[in-house]
This record gives sequence, C-alpha cells and structure tokens, in this order.
Amino acid sequence: MEKKITVLPGDGIGPEVVASAVKVLQVIGKRFNHTFHLNYAAIGGAAIDQYNNPLPDETIAMCEASDAILLGAVGGPKWDNNAPSLRPEKGLLKIRKHFDLFANLRPVKAFPSLLASSPLKREVAENVDLMIVRELTGGLYFGEPRKKTDAGAIDTCVYSREEIERIVENAFELARLRRGKLCSVDKANVLDTSRLWREIVEEKKKQYPDVETEHNLVDSVAMKLITNPGQYDVIVTENLFGDILSDEASVITGSLGVLPSASIRGDNFGLYEPVHGSAPEIAGQGVANPAATILSVAMMLQYSFGLKEEAAEIERAVTAVFNDGYFTADLAQEHTRSLSTEEWTEQVLNEI
Amino acid sequence: MEKKITVLPGDGIGPEVVASAVKVLQVIGKRFNHTFHLNYAAIGGAAIDQYNNPLPDETIAMCEASDAILLGAVGGPKWDNNAPSLRPEKGLLKIRKHFDLFANLRPVKAFPSLLASSPLKREVAENVDLMIVRELTGGLYFGEPRKKTDAGAIDTCVYSREEIERIVENAFELARLRRGKLCSVDKANVLDTSRLWREIVEEKKKQYPDVETEHNLVDSVAMKLITNPGQYDVIVTENLFGDILSDEASVITGSLGVLPSASIRGDNFGLYEPVHGSAPEIAGQGVANPAATILSVAMMLQYSFGLKEEAAEIERAVTAVFNDGYFTADLAQEHTRSLSTEEWTEQVLNEI
Ligand SMILES: CC(C)[C@H](C(=O)O)[C@@H](O)C(=O)O
Ligand SMILES: CC(C)[C@H](C(=O)O)[C@@H](O)C(=O)O
Repeated sequence: MEKKITVLPGDGIGPEVVASAVKVLQVIGKRFNHTFHLNYAAIGGAAIDQYNNPLPDETIAMCEASDAILLGAVGGPKWDNNAPSLRPEKGLLKIRKHFDLFANLRPVKAFPSLLASSPLKREVAENVDLMIVRELTGGLYFGEPRKKTDAGAIDTCVYSREEIERIVENAFELARLRRGKLCSVDKANVLDTSRLWREIVEEKKKQYPDVETEHNLVDSVAMKLITNPGQYDVIVTENLFGDILSDEASVITGSLGVLPSASIRGDNFGLYEPVHGSAPEIAGQGVANPAATILSVAMMLQYSFGLKEEAAEIERAVTAVFNDGYFTADLAQEHTRSLSTEEWTEQVLNEI
Repeated sequence: MEKKITVLPGDGIGPEVVASAVKVLQVIGKRFNHTFHLNYAAIGGAAIDQYNNPLPDETIAMCEASDAILLGAVGGPKWDNNAPSLRPEKGLLKIRKHFDLFANLRPVKAFPSLLASSPLKREVAENVDLMIVRELTGGLYFGEPRKKTDAGAIDTCVYSREEIERIVENAFELARLRRGKLCSVDKANVLDTSRLWREIVEEKKKQYPDVETEHNLVDSVAMKLITNPGQYDVIVTENLFGDILSDEASVITGSLGVLPSASIRGDNFGLYEPVHGSAPEIAGQGVANPAATILSVAMMLQYSFGLKEEAAEIERAVTAVFNDGYFTADLAQEHTRSLSTEEWTEQVLNEI
C-alpha cells in the first residue's frame, strides 16, 4: 500500500512526539511492506509566526493532496493574548471545518500498568474500555449568529438533521464493532437541539436492533464517568458536551499522556492527534510522552487505511513496553527510572 | 426572629427528606428562639397531577409571600413522556426564572467518615472543600430563539453584561469569606459569551485585589476536578457549564447524598434544595438519606436569614452523627447497620 500523509508538528512538545510517531510509522511500513510518503507543513502558533495565519493555504493544499493528517499539538503562552483570529486553536477549528472532520473518536482504555497514576480507586478504573464519539463540526462551536459587544454576547447552537444523523450512524456502526452498547448523551430536558438529537437516535436505533441503546443527560454522565466508567462502551454526543466529557474521561485511567484521537469524515480521510496539549512547560527537553501520538498513528492505520493488523501491532508494542516497566517522566512511579522520549520510542521500535 | 417558609416537597423521596429537614428546622427554632411559619405547596410531578401545571399560580403566590423556599426534589418516570411544558423540571426552571434566583451555590466538602464511598483515592478526595457558583437564570437555558423542526434545531446562549456582573460579584464576595481563591470557568477559546465573561472577571478583579483569581477552560476544569479537586476554593461559571461541573463535583467525595444547594437572588431571598434527585426507585420506603436536605436548611439559615450560629450547629450535628458511624443505606459500609430516614434524623435531633 502507498499513502501520502501530511504531518503537522505544531507547537510545544508537538514536534517531539510527532518525530517519535513518524519513526514508528516508518518501521511499520518496512515490516508490512507499505510506503508512507510524508510531507510537513505548519499549523497553530508555528504557522502564525511564519505566515501570520494559524492555518495557511499552503497547509490546506498539502492536506488536500494527502490521504491523512498527523498532528502534534497547538498552542502556547506566546500566542495567548493574540486576537481570536490569530490564535493557534483557530487553526485546529478551521482544519476540522474545512475538511468536514465531523466524527471525533476518543478511546479511553485502562492500561493495567498505569492504574497507579489514576486518581480513581483501582477497582473503579480497571475495567474502563470506552469510546467517546464527539460531533466535531457543528453546535455552539460554529453556529451563527455569534457576537460580542460591551453590553452583551451571544452564541448559537445549531444542528441540522443531517449533521446529527451522520454522527449517530457512525456511533452505531462503531458500537456494533465493539461490545454493542451505545449511550447517547444530551440535555433533552432543556435544549431543543438535544430533543432533535434524541429523536434521531430513537429513529436510527431501529436499524441497529443488535445495539443496546440508552439516552442519558450530560450532567448525569459527568457523574457516572467517575462513579462507574466501566459501564460504558460507545458514548455519542454533540460538540461541546463531547469536549467536556472526553477531557473528563481522559483522566480516569491515569493515562492522559497515552490517549490518541481521530477526527474523520465519511470517506475515511482523517486527522490524527494526541488528546494531550502542547505542554509548553516541558517542550524541547526531550522528556515528553510520545505514546498518545504513536497510538494516534495506529488509529490512522486502522480508520483511514483499513490496516487493522498493523494498528494492532502498534498497540501490542506500546502495551508491552508499559508492561515491561518502561515509562516517560509523566508516568514513572517513584521506584522506576524514567526514560526520555527517544529512549522510550526505541523500546517501542524494538518491540515491533 | 420570625420567618415564613414555603415548603415544596415535590416528588419521589422529596416529601420524606423534606419532613426530616423540617423537624430539624423546628428544633433549631426552639433552641435558638426563632419562629418558622411553614406553608406547603405543590411543584413538579405532584403539581402536574393536581393542577396540570408543574408550577401552579397558587405555589408562586405562596412563595412570593414568604422569606425562603425549601424544596425536596422533582421528577419521576410517571411524567417522563409528557410534553416539555408538562414536565416536572419545567417547574424548577420556572421558579428559578420567576424569582430571579440567579446564583446557585453548591458547596462540596469531604466528610472524612464518608471517603470510603468515594470513587477517588482517599489522598485525592480528602482535602476537597470547594463551592461552585453557577449562574442559574441565563445562557442556553433561557436564550431565544430556540426552535425544533424536523429539519433542524437551534438554541441560543445569551448573556447581558449585568447578568454576568452580578454573578461574578457574588462569587468574589464568597471567595473573600472563604479562602480567597476564585477560578472562573469559561470556553473563551471558542465562545463569544465566554470572552465577555472573561473580560468582566478581569474588570471586577480590580475591586478584589485580596482574591487570587484565575481563568480556566471548562474542559480543563472537568479534568482537574478529578485529578486535583483540593486545589479549588470558589469556582464561578455560566449556567450549563455549572450544571455539568457541579454534578461532576458532587460525586468526588462519595457524598452525593449529603450535598445541599442554595439558589438565591440579590436580596437574599432563596430556594434551598438537595443536589440529589427524586430517586423514585427508593421513594416511600423510608430509607432515603435526608442529610442533603437538612444541610440545605442550614444554608437557608445562613444565606437567607443570616443565622450563622444556627447553620453551624446543624452542620456540626450532621458531622457528629457521621463520625459516630450512623449512616442511611446509601452510605452504609458493609459492616455497619444502616438506619432508616427517621432513625437517622433522630440522631441529628438528639445531637442538637
Ligand atoms: C483547542 C480547543 C478549541 C479544542 C476544542 O474545544 O475542541 C480542544 O479542547 C479539543 O478538544 O480538541
Ligand atoms: C432538572 C434540570 C433542568 C436541572 C438543570 O439542568 O438545571 C438540574 O439538572 C439541576 O442541576 O438542578
């Protein structure tokens, strides 16, 4: 197989973790006989510095000519006081919208060897294996009108039927491939967009009689993700609820530094990035944890290229390295030595 | 002191827990020489059954003639398929709006004797002592236009400068009376309403140089409430974020069943209710935990009537009963016998 990938290292630890993930991708290519052509472009703060634009046209053109995108992270204090249109995260919001990457998949799975880092009791966190499917291109993030004056401000949450249908279908399909359980999250006791969302889930579920479907309110799920996260398989929700719940879910297993994500559209084109941010405070020190970006490459292989075996091999290797007791500084326990980004990546490469 | 209180028992376990709280209130009245005049009215499902209206005019009139409101809980499966305007929670939303109860205060404090019930590790949860100040009458909950058709739906998030200013001031004042720390929560990297919110907090903080103020994004706070909740003193945020974060915060100390809340307006008139819901599955069995409602009465004494000593006495009594190892079924550990609602209330009454 031959694929073109645009690599967007971004800011902070982005370039470091992306470098590790690219090494893993190349080794997988060699071992399974695929050719991955990589092209690099700018996004976020790096792009603001170079082009005065968090998502330059050059970057868009390169992404359009490729089969998938690998992103590091964007943002940092340097650009925090910029005008809204010149902030790093604007690049992220624009690339999602431009490429219609409407389905954000965020798996959260407990690694037994990382549970000591979890704020939750072991028995609460150990069975977690869930996938949050977040709608990524609609809702309050993009609705018009939006306006701010000195006297007041307004944002608009809009969803069309089609926007809800496609993300809900996506989630049902994923649930079918997993444990066959779907929890749809809304605030139907207050919001009209949530009432439509709930109706559409009710309609669609007729086509998925094999999937056990429930509705739950966002405030209630915010509690249950802490008290009993093991009950969830696939969770589907709108953009803002998904933002909050997926970040909440990301810390329950103690493994924020190892969580990958995929943002895909209907034809399997997608953007892959770690859940963690650009961590400017440790950037450039060679100590960042590359696991989340490496696992994002695994998601790319699986979801954009259909390379299941290759994806599984990366996951196996990462798990094995953790089980062998190798950790970067963020996860190292008191009695273990912590590895640098490069050393830890070497362990993964040796495993493959 | 002489005060009039409207009591709204509501649905499910509402009437049972309210009955306990009223007993405590009367004993406090006797002991400290106050007269509390109680009048009962209907809200929620009970009001729908009786008046076909979740908030009848009779109830509004009675509340208008009183100094504070004590509410049990509303809702239950019986009314789940009602039209939106005939649902129990509509009564709650209407009473908040009608009486302009814009400040929702939700304290979360770890009780050492309850930490075994927490999903978090003891060392993460034990220092929690925070107060969420949620804006309760604006934002997506009440903004117009709101509309649902078959083709799409829309909700509107609106905030005026005045709405933000009064809740932010309220939070600064509370922070000053507590540990002097305020965390303002928004999504200023995406929403215009959040950008205005952040600006107003920046303006107001000049009047509170003694309060240490920070801004944080809602997704980030959703994580930190789990990884390090002990860092927070007062958290202030808009309506929907407050709904999600306060429910999330309510489970971290293992004490959802004991959390009170206050919803107040500028002149100290307020509505007091437990954070937990109507728990229809255990209603009528006499096993509900009345602690949250009893502690809501303490908040009423403090915030609406300025009776600090009386409020402290209730809190002391409740803590003492827990420390003595008396629990209702929801909190009882394996080796302890669980008390009925009445038995547990007796313990508190004996303590006072
Ligand atoms: C940076 C920000 C705009 C973004 C979002 O809110 O979507 C981030 O929090 C995320 O979840 O990817
Ligand atoms: C019942 C519901 C409308 C309400 C809310 O969302 O405000 C509840 O969740 C609460 O927090 O009091």
